[in-house]
Amino acid sequence: MQTKSIKLTLAYDGTAYSGWQIQPGRPTIQAALEAAISKVTFQTTRVVASGRTDAGVHALGQVVSFQTESHLTCDVLRRAINAELSRDIGVLEVAEAPAGFHAIRDAVRKRYRYIIHDGPVRDVFARQYCWQYGYGRLDAEAMDRAAKRLLGKHDFSSFESSGAERLTSIRTILDISVRRDGDQIILEVEADGFLYNMVRAIVGTLVEVGRGTQDATWVDAVLHATDRGEAGLTAPPQGLFLVCVTYEG
Amino acid sequence: MQTKSIKLTLAYDGTAYSGWQIQPGRPTIQAALEAAISKVTFQTTRVVASGRTDAGVHALGQVVSFQTESHLTCDVLRRAINAELSRDIGVLEVAEAPAGFHAIRDAVRKRYRYIIHDGPVRDVFARQYCWQYGYGRLDAEAMDRAAKRLLGKHDFSSFESSGAERLTSIRTILDISVRRDGDQIILEVEADGFLYNMVRAIVGTLVEVGRGTQDATWVDAVLHATDRGEAGLTAPPQGLFLVCVTYEG
Repeated sequence: MQTKSIKLTLAYDGTAYSGWQIQPGRPTIQAALEAAISKVTFQTTRVVASGRTDAGVHALGQVVSFQTESHLTCDVLRRAINAELSRDIGVLEVAEAPAGFHAIRDAVRKRYRYIIHDGPVRDVFARQYCWQYGYGRLDAEAMDRAAKRLLGKHDFSSFESSGAERLTSIRTILDISVRRDGDQIILEVEADGFLYNMVRAIVGTLVEVGRGTQDATWVDAVLHATDRGEAGLTAPPQGLFLVCVTYEG
Repeated sequence: MQTKSIKLTLAYDGTAYSGWQIQPGRPTIQAALEAAISKVTFQTTRVVASGRTDAGVHALGQVVSFQTESHLTCDVLRRAINAELSRDIGVLEVAEAPAGFHAIRDAVRKRYRYIIHDGPVRDVFARQYCWQYGYGRLDAEAMDRAAKRLLGKHDFSSFESSGAERLTSIRTILDISVRRDGDQIILEVEADGFLYNMVRAIVGTLVEVGRGTQDATWVDAVLHATDRGEAGLTAPPQGLFLVCVTYEG
């Protein structure tokens, strides 16, 4: 049997799931996807994602790799897997990848978005897709100025929750911006990799600037402290979206 | 005690509810709202909505009337009621109304929106807020031409589900349009009143035109038949939004 490497791109609403990674007795994206692929290919299949997402976190373009001996074409695989998945998970694309393609190891950049709603009236339709910040308007321009101070290669220990394995806490932020769109504040950040809870810790920190308790230069002190206690709180998961993952070539 | 008439404007995500109207043992918007108001005012309060919405149907601007002896200001009432409600229901506005204001009897126009998603890939975030039509692209322009034939005063029996009490099935459609926005088809319709399931039956009928099985003039025949069996199927509830209700003066 010929084995193919598959690159699968996936969107999901994380609301109903205990995150990406398989956990016994809990609904997870990984478990749902592996069950669907295994059913379609008649082969028990293990998948690898570009990164785990936590409970309640969403994805617009998560990338997953797996090996299969299935003879189904990529388009048939996509349709058949979608037919097996519940409607809060959707396969956007299935493509054959170079032999040995690995969604974590081969990723070169990832992009996240975080949405805060700071309007005076709650948005009943967005409650699972943003942080409803109920303490008045945030200053998006001040947040953007503060965010820009995180650009480049730094030790991001101050923005890392404990409990994850990694060789180094040095990462490079390639792009970061905060802008207002009506009652929403939208943060976008792209990096060569992210530490555990890094985006949510950055958001919690920028909110301190946005509400006026700290000024933009405080972010330098937080960064240089390399101490999680110096940064802001971890923003809630439901505002976070994995936007896309970039691979070489 | 002085009694005040209150006009309350409400948004809700209908996903988790068995519709507006109180039903024993089931979660309904009316039950949730009455419980919240009663708790805040220390008075058992009954409310009247401009119209019932079915299970799964949403509201951007439902209007509700009730009488209260509460001395709380309108803004305090709004905040206090919101604090008691779960996050899928939100009070947008509380205003004092003329004595005897009644949300059904005094309504002069209502506006609904219906959203169909006909893109090739499911939208995992919109699944509870649109009809995911999975049978190819619909012709929005043909649907708009067909919809325009419903403008004006007609007997809309062909678009009425059985089971509702009403004196007449004559209604006047004041505005109706269908347009495409990316992978979405958006119907907006305003009338002096709607029969039971009328918008969803209109959508089901327009989809027959949009997919090309009928042409726009077929809608005339459906209308004149005054027979529910002649029209299209009833579109699913989760695409329907009550947009606003207009009152005299």
